[in-house]
Amino acid sequence: MISEPFSHPQIQDGWFREKPLLWPGQALGLKIKEVLHHEVSKYQDVLIFESTDYGTVLALDGVIQCTERDEFSYQEMITHLPMMSHPNPKNVLVIGGGDGGVLREIVKHESVEEVTLCEIDETVINLSKKYLPKMSVGFNHPKVKVNIGDGFEYLKDKSSQFDVIITDSSDPVGPAEPLFQVKFFELMKKALRPGGIITTQGECQWLHLHIIAEVQAYCRSLFPIVEYAYTTIPTYPSGQIGFILCSNNPSYNLKKPLRKWTEEEETKLLKYYNSKIHETAFILPQFTINGLKELEREAEEKAKSKK
Amino acid sequence: MISEPFSHPQIQDGWFREKPLLWPGQALGLKIKEVLHHEVSKYQDVLIFESTDYGTVLALDGVIQCTERDEFSYQEMITHLPMMSHPNPKNVLVIGGGDGGVLREIVKHESVEEVTLCEIDETVINLSKKYLPKMSVGFNHPKVKVNIGDGFEYLKDKSSQFDVIITDSSDPVGPAEPLFQVKFFELMKKALRPGGIITTQGECQWLHLHIIAEVQAYCRSLFPIVEYAYTTIPTYPSGQIGFILCSNNPSYNLKKPLRKWTEEEETKLLKYYNSKIHETAFILPQFTINGLKELEREAEEKAKSKK
Repeated sequence: MISEPFSHPQIQDGWFREKPLLWPGQALGLKIKEVLHHEVSKYQDVLIFESTDYGTVLALDGVIQCTERDEFSYQEMITHLPMMSHPNPKNVLVIGGGDGGVLREIVKHESVEEVTLCEIDETVINLSKKYLPKMSVGFNHPKVKVNIGDGFEYLKDKSSQFDVIITDSSDPVGPAEPLFQVKFFELMKKALRPGGIITTQGECQWLHLHIIAEVQAYCRSLFPIVEYAYTTIPTYPSGQIGFILCSNNPSYNLKKPLRKWTEEEETKLLKYYNSKIHETAFILPQFTINGLKELEREAEEKAKSKK
Repeated sequence: MISEPFSHPQIQDGWFREKPLLWPGQALGLKIKEVLHHEVSKYQDVLIFESTDYGTVLALDGVIQCTERDEFSYQEMITHLPMMSHPNPKNVLVIGGGDGGVLREIVKHESVEEVTLCEIDETVINLSKKYLPKMSVGFNHPKVKVNIGDGFEYLKDKSSQFDVIITDSSDPVGPAEPLFQVKFFELMKKALRPGGIITTQGECQWLHLHIIAEVQAYCRSLFPIVEYAYTTIPTYPSGQIGFILCSNNPSYNLKKPLRKWTEEEETKLLKYYNSKIHETAFILPQFTINGLKELEREAEEKAKSKK
């Protein structure tokens, strides 16, 4: 028996179906067991439902942000790629990440002394604490500090303060749009300590090569090291999502973990990441290599013709 | 304007939506521009439509088999993983693969003298020739021979004949069900030359670890070398599909290509595969490593309790 006490424009016949603004013509559907919550917060449409096969699901503005069944691949990869590439991360900042999953992963690193999370939408934090306990457990750790507010504003007066900054944002439509702009990367650069690393949600190579090329281009104007990595995740569009990693230390090789957990620790602590997956995450299929080269050539020509 | 001259139970409101028998609770939808063909052949429901964003799409028994936009990742990976692991593949057999895409990839290898394709459903070949010219181009090559019939029956009298056998099948429901059984692998083993390699569609680690574990278990009883690899592909369930590779030569390391194209050739000939992607395809996330270990332990205990 499907219970639907809350109506939602994307729910029909017991299924939630994505509204494909940024990936037209394709839409994942998940079968609903029960709608748990729906509200329009100050910033976005927030929907939480229990699915038949993917556990509890959080959707923001009609786009799946996380499901209990597969969230670990995203949370572990966006966290451990930069954390394992840093020799000794002590102060960490998370922009977004209101579900708490990235926090849960960060505190697995014993070197960490303090983690600050800056989330614009308190509703997401409160509802995650209520409905997504396996992710929001991250908020309970004594090293975690929470700041409710705009990540952009929060960063404005920060300087040389963080070893790792992780931007766990939704897509560049709605409240996360400023987080894909060059000014935001400039603020993150200033807020980084020497030898610091930033990682942002970096969109999908199957769908948004032009966004990846554009973000990489202005990151390269700011940082000596810029890389694109990706992970597989069934409930994100096209089944995967990428990350853009930058560092102010030109001698870093982000593609190889600087630190490793033992095999025993990997088995116990992790469900997706391991030191070998770290290296494979940066190996790109031929269409991405060719496509990014082509887009970079176009950008160069455009720049030349403007001179 | 959406034209729908053919009706189909999985088409509604201009969208085709998968019927999730083997992956309940999740269903990919593709938006339709035009339905090109629908018929029930002797073996299965065959639907071909032009999608708004994925080119022409072939669905068998309501499950997407290939789309023009992303088919290359599957066809290249199921082909070049075994072909590049073999020192000198001359005689190649394809079971299934009626769309012709695997043939198109095989003939890129100059060592090949003859390729035989054995497809049970002639309708799939004929419709692919009509509606999927970029894949069915594979049938035009002079080295290609086609046999219409049951792969199982075809293999019964073959012995020490093929260097590489590729089983490009649909899922283990319907006409492809026998292709996932141990007897089929025994026939392939007999049909292989010394130093031969077989590769079969091997299901998705996010969905069917128990099938992967089961198939691997009986492959290990037949072959000294058994490996699982995977590729990403947006329109397959959960965005990826795996392959099971076996060889009768215990000294092979299938995880590293024995032969390589140059970087220039890779750029020109390929859209997904390259020699680095070959190696990453075998690196598994932690949940797969842990899950397969657990399933193997269970299988061993079951075997013990039966003694």
